[in-house]
Amino acid sequence: MPIIAVNFKVYPQVMGAGALRLAKICDEVASKTGAQIIIAPPMTELSRVAAEVDIPVFAQHADPARVGSSTGHVPLEFIRESGGSGVIINHSEHRMGMADIEFLVKKSKYLSLETIVCTNNVPVSAAAAAFNPNYVAIEPPELIGGDISVTSVDPSIVSNSVKEVKRISSDVAVLCGAGVKKGEDVKKAVELGAEGVLLASGVVKAEDPKEVLLDLLGC
Amino acid sequence: MPIIAVNFKVYPQVMGAGALRLAKICDEVASKTGAQIIIAPPMTELSRVAAEVDIPVFAQHADPARVGSSTGHVPLEFIRESGGSGVIINHSEHRMGMADIEFLVKKSKYLSLETIVCTNNVPVSAAAAAFNPNYVAIEPPELIGGDISVTSVDPSIVSNSVKEVKRISSDVAVLCGAGVKKGEDVKKAVELGAEGVLLASGVVKAEDPKEVLLDLLGC
Amino acid sequence: MPIIAVNFKVYPQVMGAGALRLAKICDEVASKTGAQIIIAPPMTELSRVAAEVDIPVFAQHADPARVGSSTGHVPLEFIRESGGSGVIINHSEHRMGMADIEFLVKKSKYLSLETIVCTNNVPVSAAAAAFNPNYVAIEPPELIGGDISVTSVDPSIVSNSVKEVKRISSDVAVLCGAGVKKGEDVKKAVELGAEGVLLASGVVKAEDPKEVLLDLLGC
Amino acid sequence: MPIIAVNFKVYPQVMGAGALRLAKICDEVASKTGAQIIIAPPMTELSRVAAEVDIPVFAQHADPARVGSSTGHVPLEFIRESGGSGVIINHSEHRMGMADIEFLVKKSKYLSLETIVCTNNVPVSAAAAAFNPNYVAIEPPELIGGDISVTSVDPSIVSNSVKEVKRISSDVAVLCGAGVKKGEDVKKAVELGAEGVLLASGVVKAEDPKEVLLDLLGC
Repeated sequence: MPIIAVNFKVYPQVMGAGALRLAKICDEVASKTGAQIIIAPPMTELSRVAAEVDIPVFAQHADPARVGSSTGHVPLEFIRESGGSGVIINHSEHRMGMADIEFLVKKSKYLSLETIVCTNNVPVSAAAAAFNPNYVAIEPPELIGGDISVTSVDPSIVSNSVKEVKRISSDVAVLCGAGVKKGEDVKKAVELGAEGVLLASGVVKAEDPKEVLLDLLGC
Repeated sequence: MPIIAVNFKVYPQVMGAGALRLAKICDEVASKTGAQIIIAPPMTELSRVAAEVDIPVFAQHADPARVGSSTGHVPLEFIRESGGSGVIINHSEHRMGMADIEFLVKKSKYLSLETIVCTNNVPVSAAAAAFNPNYVAIEPPELIGGDISVTSVDPSIVSNSVKEVKRISSDVAVLCGAGVKKGEDVKKAVELGAEGVLLASGVVKAEDPKEVLLDLLGC
Repeated sequence: MPIIAVNFKVYPQVMGAGALRLAKICDEVASKTGAQIIIAPPMTELSRVAAEVDIPVFAQHADPARVGSSTGHVPLEFIRESGGSGVIINHSEHRMGMADIEFLVKKSKYLSLETIVCTNNVPVSAAAAAFNPNYVAIEPPELIGGDISVTSVDPSIVSNSVKEVKRISSDVAVLCGAGVKKGEDVKKAVELGAEGVLLASGVVKAEDPKEVLLDLLGC
Repeated sequence: MPIIAVNFKVYPQVMGAGALRLAKICDEVASKTGAQIIIAPPMTELSRVAAEVDIPVFAQHADPARVGSSTGHVPLEFIRESGGSGVIINHSEHRMGMADIEFLVKKSKYLSLETIVCTNNVPVSAAAAAFNPNYVAIEPPELIGGDISVTSVDPSIVSNSVKEVKRISSDVAVLCGAGVKKGEDVKKAVELGAEGVLLASGVVKAEDPKEVLLDLLGC
């Protein structure tokens, strides 16, 4: 069964109590179907959401900050202690330095946090694989938030990312994203070698997120 | 009575449940003494803490991001909807662009969020006053985290900040910080024209934060 | 006579030898008319241009870096020793932290470099004035690179910037920019209280920059 | 013969005319010995230096900016047209985003500029190799500017970088740096599989840079 990672971003639908509402829907679908659904709520809702669901809760970002005298930054230790079980790193809306990405992936491993490193093309996917994260998520920035799935517009960016990532580190799984909205997009992603998808608006802005999730999972 | 703003930073004492524990102590002291205590918990604990205390909860930082397609950033609207009532802007450990600071102060006003803009010297305090935040908090970076209070080492930076801030906008209150640990530091701050203090390690790392808070308040 | 500050940016017209070519045209017009023309060539051409013209050569940016072990950053001392006589700070295409702007303005004064601090609205102009630069240049970002002058679209942003800047520091002169192309735009700027203009494409991309400069100067 | 890349940084010795003075010494040594010496002068001196020497002149940094409306940033095209033949990317004193590094390496290739991508450990060296730059330069940040060569303190970081880089892309050459001062350091670097060194203070701050260069080259 494919992995579905839902980035809540900071859409109006997930402000305040909205984050928990969507989190519970994802939790319910995962529980009923046995699917692996990962959610990434807004930073300010992380602890509240993590306390109420069983599925893995990821932070949308982490700072390469150390525990101690740092203000407004989010170190990995705080993600874990707030109930998080992983982190999205280097999302196209929050790019990071190469050395910082490596630091975060390595430290996450030490803290037993899972990592999704986002990338924008095949060489960057290959580079990210050198850090041995759990997932590399390839998302062409020009397709993010759009209506056509990367798997239709640019299938080779997915299959070539898989090929290059596996060449560099066979343990790393590939997700893909951008424009993913339907079950057939997920099915195509898996055919191209991905183990799942990372998506946002397709679920968060849906009128009926549960229906969309079930469709994505092919249920 | 002086205002006490406690920046929890990301000290180990406020990881996970530690943030709520300290928040409740601050809440209790404020309730018993009638003092104005503002707290700024770690970003990932904002909603959980805000749900459990009556005192004002500020975010340690906000991003100049808009509600919508943004990942890992914290827009002001999310701070408010997570239960926050204000925000620390431009802390010395999280400096921001001048145009972004102005944007955040203006938008906070519109959203009924209070603002503390941190500054590092007298001209920067004057500049911050031009944005009309609720508070300008002057903290010489070289004294932050240290053991000697700014009010002893450099009293004129406080009194001159007050003078310049009031010249530019008489509505803006001044806080001071860096090395503040005791009741006499707060007393001195008030004598220099400040309306209170912004502090962190003095309370957060204290063995008995309640005792320290009572001492700061002169109770 | 109004001050004309020409930001060369990195337009194709000023790549390589193109920078010196335009610099010499500006130099010639200044020399013939007695006008005050300031030029800001691309960073990589600073020393070559400064060696060949008599008019003031400004850097388009400076980093808050110290002389010593720093790579690819441009400290103020290097601008001066490469022949520069001033610097543009906080251009809308290169925004900086508030504390860094203050540091650069103060250090420029010490090094006898002149400063133009760019701003985007009236409160930010007021804030910049608190640092006492030689010039505050107000440029609404949404009009930069456009065809209609700020002096026509939003004259009050110029006059109110002048009023606020003078209230805070009477020594600071105001320039305005964005969409400035013709002599009548400059005339209007001066009527609104500005002492000149900061412009880029109007001169750099002109077929005949000399003719444009003479028109701007009302000659 | 080993490659010697000299990063001038912004040491006081290379302010203003000092950059050209050192550049000519490097040029003379290269010409006399037939060695490959690359120099990276301060940004503001790039065109002046490039006009006067025959050895390759690299920029210390490039911005992922496009030719056009951009202020104070240095696009690759301007480096080339100012006479540069390459660029240092991601120096430890000027870290960059992973996607930006990939963009700059790819575009440099298109513009026939050579690239040195700096890295801080073995996994980051491996990642950089995925972009196919001309050189990966491994420099442990904690040793930069120090007196003991990376080749003595941590030889395995060099040999393992070589191994990993070659595994990912056999065309990429490895340089090493940090603490490199003498001919024996260079000799050791070559024994560990590097094709040369990247250094700064060892040459720039030397009383007699010519003597140091000849020693480094084993002449």
